[in-house]
Amino acid sequence: MSDYAPRPEFEHITSTANDTVKLLRSLDRKKERVETGLFLAEGARHAEEALANGWRPAYAFASQAALERPQTRDLLLRMKSAGARVLTGSEKILVTLSRKDNPQAVISAFHQRTMNLADLPATGLRRWLALYEIRDPGNLGTVIRTADAAGCDGVILIDQTCDPFSVEAVRASMGSLFAVPFATTSFEEFNAWRLGAGARMIAASMRGTHAHDKANFGERSVILMGNEQSGLPPELESACDELVRIPMMGKADSLNLAIAASVMTYEAWRAAGYKGANR
Amino acid sequence: MSDYAPRPEFEHITSTANDTVKLLRSLDRKKERVETGLFLAEGARHAEEALANGWRPAYAFASQAALERPQTRDLLLRMKSAGARVLTGSEKILVTLSRKDNPQAVISAFHQRTMNLADLPATGLRRWLALYEIRDPGNLGTVIRTADAAGCDGVILIDQTCDPFSVEAVRASMGSLFAVPFATTSFEEFNAWRLGAGARMIAASMRGTHAHDKANFGERSVILMGNEQSGLPPELESACDELVRIPMMGKADSLNLAIAASVMTYEAWRAAGYKGANR
Repeated sequence: MSDYAPRPEFEHITSTANDTVKLLRSLDRKKERVETGLFLAEGARHAEEALANGWRPAYAFASQAALERPQTRDLLLRMKSAGARVLTGSEKILVTLSRKDNPQAVISAFHQRTMNLADLPATGLRRWLALYEIRDPGNLGTVIRTADAAGCDGVILIDQTCDPFSVEAVRASMGSLFAVPFATTSFEEFNAWRLGAGARMIAASMRGTHAHDKANFGERSVILMGNEQSGLPPELESACDELVRIPMMGKADSLNLAIAASVMTYEAWRAAGYKGANR
Repeated sequence: MSDYAPRPEFEHITSTANDTVKLLRSLDRKKERVETGLFLAEGARHAEEALANGWRPAYAFASQAALERPQTRDLLLRMKSAGARVLTGSEKILVTLSRKDNPQAVISAFHQRTMNLADLPATGLRRWLALYEIRDPGNLGTVIRTADAAGCDGVILIDQTCDPFSVEAVRASMGSLFAVPFATTSFEEFNAWRLGAGARMIAASMRGTHAHDKANFGERSVILMGNEQSGLPPELESACDELVRIPMMGKADSLNLAIAASVMTYEAWRAAGYKGANR
């Protein structure tokens, strides 16, 4: 049988009315994320990814049962060393925190972090993905996951994009949010930056003049994707070096945004000979 | 001002306790869909797509306000001619039916329809997408939408795949469910069929021996995709002509299923020179 005695190295709590529990619960709201500068990471795997990529943890909660696993204890000790307040308590508190019947064993909060455009490495062969006013956090998370897998050097969120630190976006990114550099900026700043970096800007558009696999991605390029409903405004399309179209057949008039982004991202990588692929 | 008098050509109802309202509401449950053989289509656009593709309507409900639009009246008259029982009523009934605050103006139910494998055209240049035990209806709908756009000749659902007629799947397909032929079958039947059709079977796998863009798709091919969590069982991989890998970089170890399916589907179409593309 497991030994459920509290561990002295962590803070043991007994009530869902605990202030830290309330704080963690509140982080599914954008307002609270903005005010605290924190966001939620669900599960041990996401916490490991975050630590491995230098994200600063603020809080971690694990159920007593989860503490029986040596890996989980080890993770929590490393979270504590990195500055987190580590709490333990009952399965009931975990369920309250996660709002799920089968919650992950560890729920943690990390400090939000975004890059400045100026800090993104911009020499040599580079590919970035820029997203203009994306609305759906699930789409955003999936796009970040794809950008990570396809070796993009960063994801740039332009103007009023949905919150990459929402629970849905972090979850859909499957940990890639912690690995892919991303920056949040205005279109003007972004465009000045990419011109300075000598990056070609290529967008998929209904008004594309040639197929996406005929694009000249050059040494450095940005793939620009627009809003799910309305795409890109004309002035953004005008600023592009190329408008391309993803071939479609029959009556289909669009692809899901995350799908279109993946088709473009993989095409750009194919043009670069899949340089850097794992094997 | 609008004229809210009931239209004599349609049946006017006044209560959410109406039997047809109850039936339509029940169609978000798989059990009721199986028992009735019906499924829900939300919105006028989906109903138009379904009619255009020869799907047989059973019921349609529109709010009185929606009837003020000539296109909606015309659609409902065509639904009636095609055999549907057409009801009209208050916005409140529509909200009850759709479970949304801003519902579509028309909610309809169509008779389910799947193809037999033997009825899928299988001569000339063909590409199919086969999905083994996919679990997430949103993924399934997105994959069907992508298969439609990328000119697949059909989607084949193998073994215990989630219900393509669920509200989530139909919604995510954005109408493509009505356009793409699809069949539901066992792996054994499917494999016998594709061998008979002379179709190469190619799967993306962690055990792939070469990159997906080096695959030989031949004149006819099936792209086989596995379950979101566990992929394909060994015996299904063994039955394939080729196992390929989608290149990935860094620590990323997988792509979202719908993303991986789109990368494979677009690669197969690229290999066929985007034959049949809209322009």
